[in-house]
Amino acid sequence: MTMHAASSEIRPLRVGIAGLGTVGAAVAGILKRQENALAARCGRPIRVTAVSARNRNRDRGIDLSGFAWFDDPVALAASPEIDCLVELIGGSDGPAKTAVETALSAGKHVVTANKALLAAHGVALAELAEANGAALAFEASSAGGIPVVKTLREALSGNNVSRLYGILNGTCNYILSRMELEGLTFEACLKDAQRLGYAEADPTFDVEGFDTAHKLAILTSLAFGTKIDAEAIHVEGISSITPLDLKMADELGYRIKLLGVAERTKTGIEQRVHPTMVPKSSAIAQVMGVTNAVTIDADAVREITLVGPGAGGGPTASAVIADIADVARGTAGQPFGMPVARLEQPTRAPMQRHEGGYYIRLAVADRPGAAAAIATRMAQADISLESIVQRRSEIAAQRDPGGRSGAPVPVVLITYATSEQAIRGALEKVSADGHIAEAPQVIRIERE
Amino acid sequence: MTMHAASSEIRPLRVGIAGLGTVGAAVAGILKRQENALAARCGRPIRVTAVSARNRNRDRGIDLSGFAWFDDPVALAASPEIDCLVELIGGSDGPAKTAVETALSAGKHVVTANKALLAAHGVALAELAEANGAALAFEASSAGGIPVVKTLREALSGNNVSRLYGILNGTCNYILSRMELEGLTFEACLKDAQRLGYAEADPTFDVEGFDTAHKLAILTSLAFGTKIDAEAIHVEGISSITPLDLKMADELGYRIKLLGVAERTKTGIEQRVHPTMVPKSSAIAQVMGVTNAVTIDADAVREITLVGPGAGGGPTASAVIADIADVARGTAGQPFGMPVARLEQPTRAPMQRHEGGYYIRLAVADRPGAAAAIATRMAQADISLESIVQRRSEIAAQRDPGGRSGAPVPVVLITYATSEQAIRGALEKVSADGHIAEAPQVIRIERE
Repeated sequence: MTMHAASSEIRPLRVGIAGLGTVGAAVAGILKRQENALAARCGRPIRVTAVSARNRNRDRGIDLSGFAWFDDPVALAASPEIDCLVELIGGSDGPAKTAVETALSAGKHVVTANKALLAAHGVALAELAEANGAALAFEASSAGGIPVVKTLREALSGNNVSRLYGILNGTCNYILSRMELEGLTFEACLKDAQRLGYAEADPTFDVEGFDTAHKLAILTSLAFGTKIDAEAIHVEGISSITPLDLKMADELGYRIKLLGVAERTKTGIEQRVHPTMVPKSSAIAQVMGVTNAVTIDADAVREITLVGPGAGGGPTASAVIADIADVARGTAGQPFGMPVARLEQPTRAPMQRHEGGYYIRLAVADRPGAAAAIATRMAQADISLESIVQRRSEIAAQRDPGGRSGAPVPVVLITYATSEQAIRGALEKVSADGHIAEAPQVIRIERE
Repeated sequence: MTMHAASSEIRPLRVGIAGLGTVGAAVAGILKRQENALAARCGRPIRVTAVSARNRNRDRGIDLSGFAWFDDPVALAASPEIDCLVELIGGSDGPAKTAVETALSAGKHVVTANKALLAAHGVALAELAEANGAALAFEASSAGGIPVVKTLREALSGNNVSRLYGILNGTCNYILSRMELEGLTFEACLKDAQRLGYAEADPTFDVEGFDTAHKLAILTSLAFGTKIDAEAIHVEGISSITPLDLKMADELGYRIKLLGVAERTKTGIEQRVHPTMVPKSSAIAQVMGVTNAVTIDADAVREITLVGPGAGGGPTASAVIADIADVARGTAGQPFGMPVARLEQPTRAPMQRHEGGYYIRLAVADRPGAAAAIATRMAQADISLESIVQRRSEIAAQRDPGGRSGAPVPVVLITYATSEQAIRGALEKVSADGHIAEAPQVIRIERE
């Protein structure tokens, strides 16, 4: 009743949604369902007035008759019918970018879930927003329904962040969880993930770590007050992880997760995406299946971890609507939490200078002296070993019950903290020595 | 440089801190250390101009010479030298309440960490803030450094919350963690907690669940858009938990945590604080030691969990400063996320109507027919048992190797979902039957 009276006096926020896939349809549905509550929360009504998508006739379970229809998202962005563009098209360039630029240039607010766009052009778009007095909000771009953008930008205002790491891709975590729990291969789990809709037909973008890298680029900027530098990210995916690696990790007290890690080191900001051994007792190790999680280490708060769904219509829409509500209230703030001019150009910490523990799995020729020669190479590079596990493969043992056939045997080394450079150098020598039958598997260990 | 120019034009936010304990000193220290970063984040400088505490001469590791000193926090609150009062005195009434009311009545913003004050007078204070156009922010009042207030109030704007539960008291979680891991008694762990500064000399407020209840009252209001109703909370503490309960929980696949739970049920809003069995695989079960955690179930986002330090100078100051930064930016919003007039009077769901699974430990007289009689009483009350574990105590076995001495034997029942009323009724009958030697231990099981 109060709101009805209010809505005739107070200008509603008129929202245009570009892209009506699962997320867009969920956003439109929730804005309708929560109309009254959102008006009370924001002090003004929020109304979808216009939409744009590729196919007008697809059944999305929502009634489009009340919305102006645009075939072209850029025309939607330019329309005087909207105050706020919700960009859910995707892609780092093309119509998504043009639509966002068009809206911002016209002083319209933009809410987007587009991580690729932000990773490539986030700083330039923030400048454009700033110049036009518009908001640019992107909670849904990283870690789906988890409010990590708001946490970094607002809740940790008084903190210096030293490290941020997270499981930012549900597809990879689903695959690694199933490989671990059921002893399956990467290929088998990927096929299941595709069948269940957790992985795309072309899974490269997810499983090779690029999706995680886009999200990490955005979070790094928010955490350290630096310009987005996606190209600096060292990226490795999970396709080389074998059931044996997961089994060895388990025996040694670890789990393997694809992490995005951003850390302030002596040499600069280190940004890396790679399969990572994490202690089984750590909070991040408990996160299984498609769930995402982010841990932030900072000077005042020490450590906080946020866990939740990283994708899906509802969770992503939840984040999009939080941003729309901030826009409606006028509390969206600065895109990266401070003026763009204050964002520093990050000094890239080269991966060669990364320091940490390593898991190394070698396929070692089963002949006298091989293990000793490898240990010697490690010692020469000043690498201290925490443990060595040597295990004849079951196949080799069956074929050759007496042993000493020369068939390769897996040897796993766990090192104390050392540098990437030292590890790479030592492994080159081990390889040149001719003791190993295939390329070494190297997985970094992340301390708690 | 930019900020220097800006600060001469833009009015700084002048902060007065009432209470200079660990948190107050940390807030003053961080505001000084992060002066430039906060000015960039907020668009204006934040300056502590005045302070108040009981003892002016105590060494707090901060230089007070630049601040106006007030012996009386109420005089500080009334001072024209401040725009924002940071209330860190504590207590539901007395000077804390008067100071906060004085500040709000004068249109000054208030940031407080005072859960007792909010649990008792939160709605009235929010009304006062609203009437005077002032902010009332209280992120630090619940779960310390975890941004749960901001998450409920802003990040979940588009959600209907169905349940919220959390570990909100580090003292209790520390004691239960040590009891579990080391097999110690409650009393022994409490003594250690006191020695380490994790528990007060009079620990009642923490260990009997009242501290958790205050925090839960605030979070319930934010989660469900209801008026604070602290008196409706069913409160049980952890002092009756024995090492045997933790051992049985472990064997049955559970951990015991003191949870605050708020849930929308058929009969209304259920608010309860009690020791709870949680599945070992759940996110909340992983939270050990003084760490806090909150899980929120909501329709759009499904489930998110926030984990972090619930107390301590740095983490609490982190939350206080996030609020001060929101005040400085002008984005603090409405205290409970909507106008006070929109907050509903919650319908109390009576504890007798609570439905869930139960762990029941009985000290049963070791004679024929006792177990059968108990099982019959359960069946008569329509309670289905998931498992029954009967174990003769080691002491009884030593004393009486042949058994059948009549010394009581612990019997543990795990029920399927039933009502509190049914359980209480059945246990009254079991007790009247004379088969049990002491009051039954009843611990509710929380589903994931």
